[in-house]
Amino acid sequence: MTERPMDRAEIGVGLVGYRFMGRAHSNAYRQVARFFDVDPVPRMVALCGRNEAAVRDAARRLGWEGYETNYERLLEREDVQLIDISSAGDTHCEFAVAALEAGKHVLCEKPLANSLDEARRMVEAARRAGTVNMVCHNYRRVPAVRLAKRLVKEGRLGEIRHWRAVYLQDWLLDPEAPLTWRLRRETGGAGPLADLGSHLVDLAHYLVGPIAEVIGTAETFVRERPLPSGDRTGEVTVNEAAAFLARFENGAIGTFEVSPLVPGRKAHEYFEINGSRGSIAFDLERMNELQVYFEDEGPYTGGFRRILVTEPEHPYMEGWWPPGHTIGYEHTFVHTVKDLLDGIRAGESPAPTFEDGLRCQAVIDAVERSLGERGWVSTGRNPVSGETVAGL
Amino acid sequence: MTERPMDRAEIGVGLVGYRFMGRAHSNAYRQVARFFDVDPVPRMVALCGRNEAAVRDAARRLGWEGYETNYERLLEREDVQLIDISSAGDTHCEFAVAALEAGKHVLCEKPLANSLDEARRMVEAARRAGTVNMVCHNYRRVPAVRLAKRLVKEGRLGEIRHWRAVYLQDWLLDPEAPLTWRLRRETGGAGPLADLGSHLVDLAHYLVGPIAEVIGTAETFVRERPLPSGDRTGEVTVNEAAAFLARFENGAIGTFEVSPLVPGRKAHEYFEINGSRGSIAFDLERMNELQVYFEDEGPYTGGFRRILVTEPEHPYMEGWWPPGHTIGYEHTFVHTVKDLLDGIRAGESPAPTFEDGLRCQAVIDAVERSLGERGWVSTGRNPVSGETVAGL
Amino acid sequence: MTERPMDRAEIGVGLVGYRFMGRAHSNAYRQVARFFDVDPVPRMVALCGRNEAAVRDAARRLGWEGYETNYERLLEREDVQLIDISSAGDTHCEFAVAALEAGKHVLCEKPLANSLDEARRMVEAARRAGTVNMVCHNYRRVPAVRLAKRLVKEGRLGEIRHWRAVYLQDWLLDPEAPLTWRLRRETGGAGPLADLGSHLVDLAHYLVGPIAEVIGTAETFVRERPLPSGDRTGEVTVNEAAAFLARFENGAIGTFEVSPLVPGRKAHEYFEINGSRGSIAFDLERMNELQVYFEDEGPYTGGFRRILVTEPEHPYMEGWWPPGHTIGYEHTFVHTVKDLLDGIRAGESPAPTFEDGLRCQAVIDAVERSLGERGWVSTGRNPVSGETVAGL
Amino acid sequence: MTERPMDRAEIGVGLVGYRFMGRAHSNAYRQVARFFDVDPVPRMVALCGRNEAAVRDAARRLGWEGYETNYERLLEREDVQLIDISSAGDTHCEFAVAALEAGKHVLCEKPLANSLDEARRMVEAARRAGTVNMVCHNYRRVPAVRLAKRLVKEGRLGEIRHWRAVYLQDWLLDPEAPLTWRLRRETGGAGPLADLGSHLVDLAHYLVGPIAEVIGTAETFVRERPLPSGDRTGEVTVNEAAAFLARFENGAIGTFEVSPLVPGRKAHEYFEINGSRGSIAFDLERMNELQVYFEDEGPYTGGFRRILVTEPEHPYMEGWWPPGHTIGYEHTFVHTVKDLLDGIRAGESPAPTFEDGLRCQAVIDAVERSLGERGWVSTGRNPVSGETVAGL
Repeated sequence: MTERPMDRAEIGVGLVGYRFMGRAHSNAYRQVARFFDVDPVPRMVALCGRNEAAVRDAARRLGWEGYETNYERLLEREDVQLIDISSAGDTHCEFAVAALEAGKHVLCEKPLANSLDEARRMVEAARRAGTVNMVCHNYRRVPAVRLAKRLVKEGRLGEIRHWRAVYLQDWLLDPEAPLTWRLRRETGGAGPLADLGSHLVDLAHYLVGPIAEVIGTAETFVRERPLPSGDRTGEVTVNEAAAFLARFENGAIGTFEVSPLVPGRKAHEYFEINGSRGSIAFDLERMNELQVYFEDEGPYTGGFRRILVTEPEHPYMEGWWPPGHTIGYEHTFVHTVKDLLDGIRAGESPAPTFEDGLRCQAVIDAVERSLGERGWVSTGRNPVSGETVAGL
Repeated sequence: MTERPMDRAEIGVGLVGYRFMGRAHSNAYRQVARFFDVDPVPRMVALCGRNEAAVRDAARRLGWEGYETNYERLLEREDVQLIDISSAGDTHCEFAVAALEAGKHVLCEKPLANSLDEARRMVEAARRAGTVNMVCHNYRRVPAVRLAKRLVKEGRLGEIRHWRAVYLQDWLLDPEAPLTWRLRRETGGAGPLADLGSHLVDLAHYLVGPIAEVIGTAETFVRERPLPSGDRTGEVTVNEAAAFLARFENGAIGTFEVSPLVPGRKAHEYFEINGSRGSIAFDLERMNELQVYFEDEGPYTGGFRRILVTEPEHPYMEGWWPPGHTIGYEHTFVHTVKDLLDGIRAGESPAPTFEDGLRCQAVIDAVERSLGERGWVSTGRNPVSGETVAGL
Repeated sequence: MTERPMDRAEIGVGLVGYRFMGRAHSNAYRQVARFFDVDPVPRMVALCGRNEAAVRDAARRLGWEGYETNYERLLEREDVQLIDISSAGDTHCEFAVAALEAGKHVLCEKPLANSLDEARRMVEAARRAGTVNMVCHNYRRVPAVRLAKRLVKEGRLGEIRHWRAVYLQDWLLDPEAPLTWRLRRETGGAGPLADLGSHLVDLAHYLVGPIAEVIGTAETFVRERPLPSGDRTGEVTVNEAAAFLARFENGAIGTFEVSPLVPGRKAHEYFEINGSRGSIAFDLERMNELQVYFEDEGPYTGGFRRILVTEPEHPYMEGWWPPGHTIGYEHTFVHTVKDLLDGIRAGESPAPTFEDGLRCQAVIDAVERSLGERGWVSTGRNPVSGETVAGL
Repeated sequence: MTERPMDRAEIGVGLVGYRFMGRAHSNAYRQVARFFDVDPVPRMVALCGRNEAAVRDAARRLGWEGYETNYERLLEREDVQLIDISSAGDTHCEFAVAALEAGKHVLCEKPLANSLDEARRMVEAARRAGTVNMVCHNYRRVPAVRLAKRLVKEGRLGEIRHWRAVYLQDWLLDPEAPLTWRLRRETGGAGPLADLGSHLVDLAHYLVGPIAEVIGTAETFVRERPLPSGDRTGEVTVNEAAAFLARFENGAIGTFEVSPLVPGRKAHEYFEINGSRGSIAFDLERMNELQVYFEDEGPYTGGFRRILVTEPEHPYMEGWWPPGHTIGYEHTFVHTVKDLLDGIRAGESPAPTFEDGLRCQAVIDAVERSLGERGWVSTGRNPVSGETVAGL
């Protein structure tokens, strides 16, 4: 839909999925060239879904030129160079591998896959394809998170020693909340541990470094839930909530916890990092803010400062509004697409790549194994291929 | 640019101005039909500005089909039914009156005018025109503010007794910040008192009711500033900062303060309302939250609660994302345009109308007079026409 | 009750009043030498009150060696060198003047007096006496407030431009709250404007400097209240709530507001100071914290920092507990008594002296006059004596 | 030092230790009868320490009638009925057992002992003695924590599912902080895991219930530190920081973390409890507040509320000041001593008793064993005696 500036190339996009994530991604393609000087400019060629009436309606509403009801047809289109996979987790591997084999660039929603094996196959396909690939871990591109990364990189926190993170929501609190695909092992993979936990693991990898080993615990508090059809109940076959300890390769200690059964927490993705020289804390519910403490301030005037990350000096913010005028959740997808387009121009997959997605998956997988083994599990080796995950 | 659903009407929009406000309004027209079922759907026909190269470039970037460099030409266009005035304050009166006389609907940026006389003429033109008019006081349409209004209306706060509000920013703190049109009386009107203060007065009128009388004080802390050209300095001829007391018609007491010279405050538009049964507090820097206290909770578990205003039950939020996923500054304009389009469909001007804008102007005007008179000034009568402002 | 170290002098204390303030002052005398190296050490000689049974019981409970039921008798005692007046406001003048004429040192609760004339007479008596005098504005001695003062003095905030302060409570919110002496003009003086407002004015004088002129507004929302006896109601003859604007001698602008009818606010004494280089904010409900912003941090990492004022480097804190271990309300009285004892040793009245109390009274008085005059009133001259308040 | 009301009994107290804890306990004995109607009233008979000059000086300053330099002598005194052990952790067992054998009541600082075996011997001695025993886990008696307990007990949170707690400080952050007894295994036991962790475990036991099994990780970031003498360095032989997962007997999941190397955290003892109907959060740095969310509020006005726990309706607060006037760290010891004295009157050991202390120790011990075993360790059985800890 974007009016292409004369001197910029265009890239045709095909998007699979039009629910929550499909809406957020569509918005990103519509908005990115309005606020950032991207090149190529995305052309919203086709939305893809199986239900024709629904996908046609969604395409119109979300701003797509056309639609497809058949994924193979989408891949055959010459005017589509970038495939965006925002469908359910159990479709990622199949769709991504096919897109890569068709020579497309691929953006895939997180978590990358529902199993380590799937993730490995996706990485291999990406290597063979040589096109640009990226996992949509959008929270890396919250300006405050980006600022956190810069402070870590600049050494402002010193040597990192502690990571603690939770992702708490309340959408499963109601025992009448239905048994969706997310709560069945065969479709939802590791459940909230993967859905919410992959966000935390990706951020930990991004901000602290590789996780070496983990041990976890998990629980399902509401074991039977009504089926979406409503007339019967079924068993929840994923863990609803989980917590785990982690050791990072650099010696830092980490704690992680996810639960969608927490009264009062809506999108409380919180992390804190403590180093030898400073600390950082972030809460997604106040995503325009970063809490920072620098030890060298000394005790007299030292204190956690609340940085309102809305200055033009802050990552991505020059594209938006004057200082103090905040952005919201959807903007993180705009930033992701911006960096993806920059990557396509440069011919380089922007982080997190599929390999990063596999590393993330390896941690989730190790946590799941630790539940059964009741002991620490190393994430260092890909248990399928035998190669180290870090050395992929 | 919006793909119009088959069963909905279209309305052609012409926008004047393409800087900060022009960008925010353009975004609203682009986005509104993506998230809300509006009817008519806006068609972004033409952007208007005097510098052809600049306006052409802006039109392309912001998503307008075309552009005009002459305001009269814009008004002559049959395919434009709604004029949006986002240009500098000293153009509002002329542009709005002309648009109304041309039979257009008009959305005008705040403050409505640079003087009470201008505002009165705009109201008169609006009455004669019979089209829909609205002032873009976008903060009325922050979901948290809308929730505050509902709680007040439902009587949850009881009888309102106290209003206190500040709008503090830091963009004039640097003594080298240039002497823009906003800091000259002839172009900037009452300066920050009008620019920031009109936001607070509009919210006070909306949430508490009509202001009866006021007394203020004001100061200019940096009296000489560099001209935008940079080689010389000029005198600041507006008050940089101001504070005033107010008595509301319903007996409540109010305090107001505006200053763009406050270190650390970026967009700290804060208001608090205290009634006989409860209290409410809001801070624009955390615009997804509302602080609320209900007296009937009793002392044992009573406390200010932080409502994260992101539930589908909350005003406007059903159109956006799941609970906890926040929205940003620009969304307030989307909501404003949504309600404007609903008003156009219904043939009714949505509040704040030009008359509301005049009432707001009457308060700013009274504050300014109180500076010279050093005593209380009533806002009850329009000093130009003699009629009561409340009874317009 | 204090065990006097061998090398320290003792000073006999007589305290008038044993309710809220009497309890807080008694605690200060009991505790001060346990935590600070004071010299002289207070000896809690006698508590004074008219009801013998009550005062005897209170003396035992609060740790006084004995008691008196007659104020003259207290003043005659040779073993009492320091008189502490914690009785109702309408007794301050008489008691203080008598104590000073008897050659005693005097600590007087705030507000100093119920009228400007009384305050003037107290200052004159203090001058004649030559003993040490002090007003118990205890909030000057919150460590965070003391830290604020140091930052202002060190120039860390630059030139001060804005002061805004509120003191909000809820104890009068209930319309059945009884008509105590505080709500009758003849005993309660200016009511909450004096009771709460004098705290704010004293802090403003301490932190920003002399107030030059003021204009205020006030209201009584509940005009009839039950008499303490309970069987009838009586008229509230003070203003329950008030707000006023102020101009400081140094050019800063101030806003003040007091109300004990605010749902959810218990002891919300909040002030904020903005200078050309930084800002400070304080809330009594979180009295161990100071919010500070330094402009020179720049936008990249700048933000309001929350200083936990519990380090040994912070004012008064070396006497208490390790960092992070907070103190409470009563500690401010211990600090006040510590500084009073230091003043007695040095032969110098510590601020706020009775003269400071008179200056404070002059502001309250000017606000009250502005209510009738409906215009600005100067505080610069003592309207009784004709001399400038600042030049007393 | 307390003036005993005529109708109340007295109990003679002997206190061992006069540093941080000794000062805090002394204050509690001085203050308790001033604010609460205790019976018996404590008489501060003797302070005990080995260095005569130091203990004499401390006794005078802290308000003790006399002192002893020999612990046996203290136990022989007929006028001492209550022994308070505030000395270093490696003395607790010997001192407590001796005191109990001498027929004294005993209050012992936490953690109860340096090993599980010591703790067991203390419990056995307590059983034989039949006097009153108590562990000074003072944070149980923060009014906000007590309120949390009441809300849990009343079922306001529903079924408890999640506990997460951290105790973060910064006193070991400086690599030049000396190698005190706390950092040597032989004197400091489990180090910060015991020192800080026992606070968290005790609160978890109090608020959620018995912990069934644990697994932890730990690290020492600064391995060599200067000896207190200053001329050489020595090895840190305890873990500086630790984190562990826990399963409660009732099915809840818990996470715990302690570290004294966290920049910006001074006494950040934070816990959060999530149940099926509500959530609670507490931070010791803001100890007068409790954050509470009740699910039944519904989404429209639901939100975490900040309860200022200073109302007379709140636990312990009737003894102190009017609403909004906060208390501090030391008050928790006053409350502990109040409840201890009530227990002595009733002939019943108040929780946490020595048995509670042993249960706490069993968890710390299990965490330590899990470090070596790299797997989950049950706390259910006392590994020394073979009996279940819960069934002691």
